Amino acid sequence: MLAAFGEQLEAVLDSLVPASGKAERLYQAMRYALLGGGKYLRPYIVDAAAGIFEVSQTASLRTGAAVEMIHAYSLVHDDLPAMDDDDLRRGRATCHRAFDEATAILAGDALLTLAFRTLAEPETHPDGAVRAALVASLADCAGGRGMVGGQMMDLVSEHAPVGVDAVFDIMRLKTGALLTFSAMAGAILGQADDRARQALRDFGSDLGLAFQMKDDLLDVEGDEASLGKRAAKDAAAGKATLVSLLGVEGAHREARRTSDAALAHLDCFGPRADRLRSVAVFVLARDR
Amino acid sequence: MLAAFGEQLEAVLDSLVPASGKAERLYQAMRYALLGGGKYLRPYIVDAAAGIFEVSQTASLRTGAAVEMIHAYSLVHDDLPAMDDDDLRRGRATCHRAFDEATAILAGDALLTLAFRTLAEPETHPDGAVRAALVASLADCAGGRGMVGGQMMDLVSEHAPVGVDAVFDIMRLKTGALLTFSAMAGAILGQADDRARQALRDFGSDLGLAFQMKDDLLDVEGDEASLGKRAAKDAAAGKATLVSLLGVEGAHREARRTSDAALAHLDCFGPRADRLRSVAVFVLARDR
Repeated sequence: MLAAFGEQLEAVLDSLVPASGKAERLYQAMRYALLGGGKYLRPYIVDAAAGIFEVSQTASLRTGAAVEMIHAYSLVHDDLPAMDDDDLRRGRATCHRAFDEATAILAGDALLTLAFRTLAEPETHPDGAVRAALVASLADCAGGRGMVGGQMMDLVSEHAPVGVDAVFDIMRLKTGALLTFSAMAGAILGQADDRARQALRDFGSDLGLAFQMKDDLLDVEGDEASLGKRAAKDAAAGKATLVSLLGVEGAHREARRTSDAALAHLDCFGPRADRLRSVAVFVLARDR
Repeated sequence: MLAAFGEQLEAVLDSLVPASGKAERLYQAMRYALLGGGKYLRPYIVDAAAGIFEVSQTASLRTGAAVEMIHAYSLVHDDLPAMDDDDLRRGRATCHRAFDEATAILAGDALLTLAFRTLAEPETHPDGAVRAALVASLADCAGGRGMVGGQMMDLVSEHAPVGVDAVFDIMRLKTGALLTFSAMAGAILGQADDRARQALRDFGSDLGLAFQMKDDLLDVEGDEASLGKRAAKDAAAGKATLVSLLGVEGAHREARRTSDAALAHLDCFGPRADRLRSVAVFVLARDR
């Protein structure tokens, strides 16, 4: 499903993050983190959601590239020794192992910054208000009230036992917020009405939950070779997850229920949302 | 000069970074880094430059707040053990010493993200194209081709000897880029013509150079008590600076020459730029 799209996106990422420059080592590390064989799920969601409103491919690819930069930076920083301390990501050395810690911190900072630059440039959309809305919305979803806040709560939860509500909060912020932006970005680019915007926001939020539940299940059921990262690391870290709280079968049921809820939000768009629907199916079917 | 302005700015920062929320520890760390007694030089430059074009105080304070967030995040990340490994900043514990490394990394990420959110919100300027231009310009100055790139080059320079040209490049990017944005932001907010924009860009760039030269001189001449941070750390790290390359007297001469050049760029604005002129005087007179 994602292979042909991945090539288009990589061409855009490649042009936005050139290999050379005065701080060459920095750009090498940024490219290593960004072009390292990700699934490009978030950019694909942007593109499929933007497709509902017949947004130009340039606009949706550049917006997708920005989300992917945020995703890539978050993985680089989360993998650092002071955070999750991971050596392996996508089947190869994490950024700070391939380069060094200082370079990884700076490469993350530069990717985060470049995401906003990419959205703010006139090439992304002719209307300045649309570009500013994309920036505000991505910052909202990626920052202290979104993804970064979720990561902070996740770290704190390692030292204090948490219940189902807190685990849902963490899933919603840490993973869900960026998927929420990805779906909503289509409506922002398409200058859609509030109802369409809300439907896509709700779709993204439920999809994010289902995605994280699947991730937790893979962490328990998967093996290292197919995951490309250390398996069962949540259990090893003593972290509460939906699986540890509801059991494997309970988590499977919850993931299917949430995926169905996500799909229901797309009913109002009819067949124009078929590409986006296929994402929800993909999320529940994936094995890594 | 900066005391009354500092109070106004802190009120804006306080409202943009509330103390409570789901990720409370994160926001505590963000506030610790942001409201920790900085000089607020960059926001003051934004305000003084915006004053040339009679920009609203709300617009210039919010834009100044965004620059200060970028400055604060860069200090938090630069102080980390993997980077400069500093325990002391502004006379108290650095963020990762007061909290912990993971919290400091995330607080930096959240401040960086919030800076762009602040610029992109309609409260900053009614024209979306102006808000998007602020975001693009700040991202340009703060990212891999600006401040972060300069920090990367600075780290690399510890392991490989560099000459005067490279030291100038590092100063221009690491410190100069954010001061360049600060001056230029006044022209962007004021929707000034290209000539005014270029004059303020050149002013900011030269002021940034003079500022960093003064910083290097203080590092050699200052003592810990008045600096509030470890003195002579450049020499201890074996880093090439303008002082090590030109000598103390040579660096003083160069700093004065660059400050004069900065002031000359403001001639076209007449007395409207008097507040901005006073900044250049302040930069060369400061003793910490």
